Amino acid sequence: MRDLSRDTAFLSINAATLKPLTLRQAVETLARHDIRAIAPWRDRLAEYGVREAAQLFGDHGMTITGLCRGGMFTSGNEALDDNRRAIDEAAAIGAQCLVLVVGGLAPRSRDLAEARQIVRDGIAAMLPHAREAGVKLAIEPLHPMYAADRACINTMTQANDLCDALGDGLGIAVDLYHVWWDPRLEAEIARAGRHKGRILAFHICDWLVPTRDLLLDRGMMGDGVIDIRRIRSCVEAAGYTGHCEVEIFSAENWWKREPDDVLRICVERYQSCC
Amino acid sequence: MRDLSRDTAFLSINAATLKPLTLRQAVETLARHDIRAIAPWRDRLAEYGVREAAQLFGDHGMTITGLCRGGMFTSGNEALDDNRRAIDEAAAIGAQCLVLVVGGLAPRSRDLAEARQIVRDGIAAMLPHAREAGVKLAIEPLHPMYAADRACINTMTQANDLCDALGDGLGIAVDLYHVWWDPRLEAEIARAGRHKGRILAFHICDWLVPTRDLLLDRGMMGDGVIDIRRIRSCVEAAGYTGHCEVEIFSAENWWKREPDDVLRICVERYQSCC
Repeated sequence: MRDLSRDTAFLSINAATLKPLTLRQAVETLARHDIRAIAPWRDRLAEYGVREAAQLFGDHGMTITGLCRGGMFTSGNEALDDNRRAIDEAAAIGAQCLVLVVGGLAPRSRDLAEARQIVRDGIAAMLPHAREAGVKLAIEPLHPMYAADRACINTMTQANDLCDALGDGLGIAVDLYHVWWDPRLEAEIARAGRHKGRILAFHICDWLVPTRDLLLDRGMMGDGVIDIRRIRSCVEAAGYTGHCEVEIFSAENWWKREPDDVLRICVERYQSCC
Repeated sequence: MRDLSRDTAFLSINAATLKPLTLRQAVETLARHDIRAIAPWRDRLAEYGVREAAQLFGDHGMTITGLCRGGMFTSGNEALDDNRRAIDEAAAIGAQCLVLVVGGLAPRSRDLAEARQIVRDGIAAMLPHAREAGVKLAIEPLHPMYAADRACINTMTQANDLCDALGDGLGIAVDLYHVWWDPRLEAEIARAGRHKGRILAFHICDWLVPTRDLLLDRGMMGDGVIDIRRIRSCVEAAGYTGHCEVEIFSAENWWKREPDDVLRICVERYQSCC
């Protein structure tokens, strides 16, 4: 298991953790803290300009641990076109993967099995373009509390099954917040590890007790109940050598603090709790 | 599949759905709506007196579809004594099962595997007393969003595994709210069905989009996205012939309405949406 306690070489910050900042502010603030990896969101990329953003990242030596996000295959006919654009953007900024939040139930539907089939078909339809563009697609299994409205892929088992079925160019973004509870977690991480490069990203934060909001009350590492180090050891035993990406949605706490304080604490907790 | 649309013969109301009412008020209100099954909670039972409650239920011809609740095995040394008392209370009121909300992480622990072992040991320790008392223990898998603080048994798979391991006298309370998202749901319901009487209770309500609170924002059947009828058909295909028990925690909506209105709508939705 890697020793993370000495530097920030494998620390990445998902830009949502620094929600109040523009893309340029986020990159410059990260650089000031000697953090050289980021996962941007497409809306901020669009504001800034994709080509300009690629330049900005390059100027600051940033690794792009993922682009957030593609997916939402169940949202309707526009989904595939939008995913093609997301793939092109991921290629333009050299992202290590395009994160797929696959979508929940289709509008006015109660049929989860159908949603899961739409997702499978959507990913299959995107893979040729992604392969051609050299962009890996990372299925992010989302917590079951988002099954209706955000993602009907809710376990590592489902994600592994899709990867097995659909082949090269597809992998998994393992986000602790979504999968920490799963009794099959260790087995499925090990299963992913039997395919080189399947684990494309590793997202960290913590589960707070109590959790006051389904979406916007994630915790800083160490403030909750997830055994982060144990799960990281599994992920690394499965061959993962990439970054730990801090992704904290926190409307009432971290998003209200000074970004410099947030990053200082991110670094401290990354080095001591992860 | 049974036709529920004509009467209330298989409708039960979990007393939490009528939270503002005392036990006596709840029973009398149910009887007025020709509903003859209830699942009471232990705190209200204690207020009223267990023997007196048994009399009250008998006087109104109430079937007791479950007693809420035993479990919380990870909470400490008192847990086993409390579960023994719960079993005795369930026997005293003739409950069809004692519902087990098994407990989440132990205090100050991040070890889910350990919690799951404590739960397994706790249930095993309770089974002889339960068998002697003629009380079936019903493991209720709770939604993964409660893994930390309420129940570390979060899937039907886990519940079936425990039943297989621990033997007679143990079964499952299938609550739609907790398990509707699970890609293995149908397979695990069918698996449960291979053991006569393993499905001990069937709880219904709905998952609202959006859900505004992790605990207290459950929906009335038909107001959310759960395909209730499909899952009921699976449960019945697996041999379940018992009641559908309406359990709605709803601080901002149903708990604020007139109980007579709540029951009128429960009956209507039970007959048309389930």
